[in-house]
Amino acid sequence: MVRYSSAALRAATASAALVAASGAIAQSGAPARIMDEGLNRSQVMVTASELLDGIGHRLTLSPSMTRAQSWAMGKFRSYGLTNVHQEPFEFGRGWEIISSSARMVEPRPIDMLAIPIAWTPPTNGTVRAPVIVAPISKPEHFAAWRGKLAGKIVLVTLPGTTDEPAKSAFIRLSDKDISDRDEFKLPNYDPDAANLRAQRRGFAKKLDAFLKAEGAVAWARKSYRDGMLLHGEGYTYGVGETPTLPGFEIAAEDYRRLARLAKSGRPPVVELTSNVRFDDSTTKASNVIADIAGTDPNAGYVMAGAHFDSWVAADGATDNGAGSVVVMEAARILKAIGARPKRTIRFALWSGEEQGLLGSRAYIEQHLVSRPVDPSLKGIDAYYAWSDAYPITTKPGYSAMKAYFNMDNGSGRLRGIHAEQNGAAVPILKEWLSPYGALDADRVVIGKTGGTDHVYLQAVGLQGYQFVQDPLDYNSRTHHSNADTFDHLRGDDLRQAAVVMAGVLLAAANSDKELPRPPVPQKPLDTDPFDYPDPDK
Amino acid sequence: MVRYSSAALRAATASAALVAASGAIAQSGAPARIMDEGLNRSQVMVTASELLDGIGHRLTLSPSMTRAQSWAMGKFRSYGLTNVHQEPFEFGRGWEIISSSARMVEPRPIDMLAIPIAWTPPTNGTVRAPVIVAPISKPEHFAAWRGKLAGKIVLVTLPGTTDEPAKSAFIRLSDKDISDRDEFKLPNYDPDAANLRAQRRGFAKKLDAFLKAEGAVAWARKSYRDGMLLHGEGYTYGVGETPTLPGFEIAAEDYRRLARLAKSGRPPVVELTSNVRFDDSTTKASNVIADIAGTDPNAGYVMAGAHFDSWVAADGATDNGAGSVVVMEAARILKAIGARPKRTIRFALWSGEEQGLLGSRAYIEQHLVSRPVDPSLKGIDAYYAWSDAYPITTKPGYSAMKAYFNMDNGSGRLRGIHAEQNGAAVPILKEWLSPYGALDADRVVIGKTGGTDHVYLQAVGLQGYQFVQDPLDYNSRTHHSNADTFDHLRGDDLRQAAVVMAGVLLAAANSDKELPRPPVPQKPLDTDPFDYPDPDK
Repeated sequence: MVRYSSAALRAATASAALVAASGAIAQSGAPARIMDEGLNRSQVMVTASELLDGIGHRLTLSPSMTRAQSWAMGKFRSYGLTNVHQEPFEFGRGWEIISSSARMVEPRPIDMLAIPIAWTPPTNGTVRAPVIVAPISKPEHFAAWRGKLAGKIVLVTLPGTTDEPAKSAFIRLSDKDISDRDEFKLPNYDPDAANLRAQRRGFAKKLDAFLKAEGAVAWARKSYRDGMLLHGEGYTYGVGETPTLPGFEIAAEDYRRLARLAKSGRPPVVELTSNVRFDDSTTKASNVIADIAGTDPNAGYVMAGAHFDSWVAADGATDNGAGSVVVMEAARILKAIGARPKRTIRFALWSGEEQGLLGSRAYIEQHLVSRPVDPSLKGIDAYYAWSDAYPITTKPGYSAMKAYFNMDNGSGRLRGIHAEQNGAAVPILKEWLSPYGALDADRVVIGKTGGTDHVYLQAVGLQGYQFVQDPLDYNSRTHHSNADTFDHLRGDDLRQAAVVMAGVLLAAANSDKELPRPPVPQKPLDTDPFDYPDPDK
Repeated sequence: MVRYSSAALRAATASAALVAASGAIAQSGAPARIMDEGLNRSQVMVTASELLDGIGHRLTLSPSMTRAQSWAMGKFRSYGLTNVHQEPFEFGRGWEIISSSARMVEPRPIDMLAIPIAWTPPTNGTVRAPVIVAPISKPEHFAAWRGKLAGKIVLVTLPGTTDEPAKSAFIRLSDKDISDRDEFKLPNYDPDAANLRAQRRGFAKKLDAFLKAEGAVAWARKSYRDGMLLHGEGYTYGVGETPTLPGFEIAAEDYRRLARLAKSGRPPVVELTSNVRFDDSTTKASNVIADIAGTDPNAGYVMAGAHFDSWVAADGATDNGAGSVVVMEAARILKAIGARPKRTIRFALWSGEEQGLLGSRAYIEQHLVSRPVDPSLKGIDAYYAWSDAYPITTKPGYSAMKAYFNMDNGSGRLRGIHAEQNGAAVPILKEWLSPYGALDADRVVIGKTGGTDHVYLQAVGLQGYQFVQDPLDYNSRTHHSNADTFDHLRGDDLRQAAVVMAGVLLAAANSDKELPRPPVPQKPLDTDPFDYPDPDK
């Protein structure tokens, strides 16, 4: 397999730069100029350091996110982009951690590793209480614990056993790994899944009400990764959704020790402190938008995006500082080489992705389509309902959006792109990526990807694509975790990614071809109408 | 490769137990009875829980270690062992952590993950100061930092880059992995190495004196594992060796963030709290010894051992709770089946292993040999000097010690044993292990292993052997770390190990054969007397 060497490429592109600087700048020379600027004069790691070390995490609507957005807009303006602005959308409450601690005090003193769950209330001092292990993951489990939780810190997760990871923690994709993604999957619409989602809605609120009614003083869950990794995701961000009890995530090793001690005799006594703060100065989160204006006002626009928001356990470096700074660096590179594209190139730093792709959905609702979601649904409920709401009604801006490229899989270099089941797009994407074969980035696979901001564009029939990326240690240890810091970024990978992102955007903005657009989706029929749903699922 | 299934074996041994219980108990039936007792009525995980969850870490001479030793002696007595006692040796100071914390307060607030380094003094409240990155690992580095450290928290480790682990975190040995250990290595004596060790002696003391003289307020090093793992090893345990400045180990991600921020602008301000306590009620650590008395007082003894001490970052489950409870369970099994061995079987739970195999060396000095170590050397200095001290003078007890079996490589099942370069021992070890082929434990490899309590026995010409064990996640994340908790143990593996340990001990105690003993070692000659040492090493 071709593996590009960053040093070799810099040498190669230095001579390309000489050609470029000689005045004979043809449109066809753009890839060489992009590589020269992006590999020899990269700013991506400096930008990353300012964001991740200097500002830190970017929980949606937190004061830290607000600082980061101001900084990002300043950066875009300093690169020479225009139309730099924020587009607000209704979100909920700001929240931040000032400090926290967790400690077992009986039967022996141990400092534990724990984090307050996002958008849970503070302890207002320190809560000291015995723990009880009460595995509760659905309302049917409440009955077994009635009358047993008063004055307790309730551990709601089954302790389980330690993982035995068979794969290495740091992974680069093999050719076969990439080929495995080149598979068309038949659509499978299952209305039972929608029912299941409906059942799960609001469980956090029900759990909080139950625990409160029972007189519990706090609750904690186990980290889902072993080895002292923490995350702290929470979803009660809406106004009026704030729980009454403080909630914590405890490192798996510390949690299981508590659970074993609770079973073997006198329950451990734990002290929890959650010094967190709500900020209700606004209920609106916002996306950051910036443009490189196209020369043809009727040619529409192409777009690159990455979610800018993160969780709070560390600095959100690989999720998704990486994608964010690559999008910013692609903008910088294109301005630095003096690109004057036919179509406008728009850059988006989304917010609210971690709470359900809320920022990119807000953009879609503001500019592209409307879907008839029950307006009484809020937050995570609205998120689940939106995907199932038909018909989709297009807005005037719908046809102007020609292509969207998303980056949100960590710091790994781009190895190609997912065509997201759109076979007709494959040859065009191949053409646009072909100059970056030397960077090992030119694979186009038919497979579909989920979980990030291109999904809702795809869901309304627009051209949203996610790159293929080397995973590195994203899945094993950085995604959402307390280890998601700048030092898990890889400079050579991010420089490559910014070059490829800039190149694909410019090609898409100037291409005579438009990516072929599928029809506006209609409500699918159940693909397995004769099955009997399992009543326990 | 044969992989034993615990459930299948339990079924198989249940019928073996019926035969055993029928009254026809021949000596040759011992392996089946050991398997029955050790697989069907195992206590090893209950014993482990009492020790690891109930008592916790066992830093040499700490109050927690003292509690654990009393508990272990009670266990041995409850199994019916005799001569249960402690054998003290001169060590230094007791030390324990009550609580600690580390926090960045400028440029933004972050709770960091850190641990006080063992045997460093408390902060007496909270130290708040800016950090400075001053990589110092030998006295030659002091000069560059003179006049720059006053009032600072000094970060002494080069930040480096994040690791990219290529191997999986959880490993079982393949047949090839085991075969690779079946290699005789020619002796290689290099007096330069001894000189190097001599140069390194006392660096902690020199660093402390330098930092103190410069007016630094505390120092910190980086964890050597990424991903929020911590260790906290320290070696200034001797009386009179206690440093004046508090020292911390900071998680790699948090340390590198501090280092980057320090380089990019205003140095971060950090708050460190180390609420640690010295306990000088005695300077003597001790080993725990217990016997199953042999029927022939002139036949000598065989021995199993494991170091009982641990570091303090967690509960010392795999290092070396695992080996300790397997040794204890082997004793229990042998008493439970009514074994009456010809030779005495002695069980040792060593202390001070982590500080340089001090407990097993004390046993050797008390019972087996003497070496002429400069008596003015203390602690780690004496440790380095001991191995190079000649001649070795044997004591009357030397010939009674027939074989020693050590376990100290985590919770993984025993796959065989290292013959430690003693080729004449191979066929005998094979014979003793052969009943445990069904347990996948019968490989004998010629290779040598280091780093634990059989080493000094080997060094004085005695029969000390270390088992081959599946590593599991010992090397990747539990060894010495804050993730070394009970849940990283594997019950099936420890049950197997206890059965094999009991079986080998009983075979060795009853065997007509003795393991062939090499000559008492003499001072080796330099094997490469014509080289020129690199002055920078």
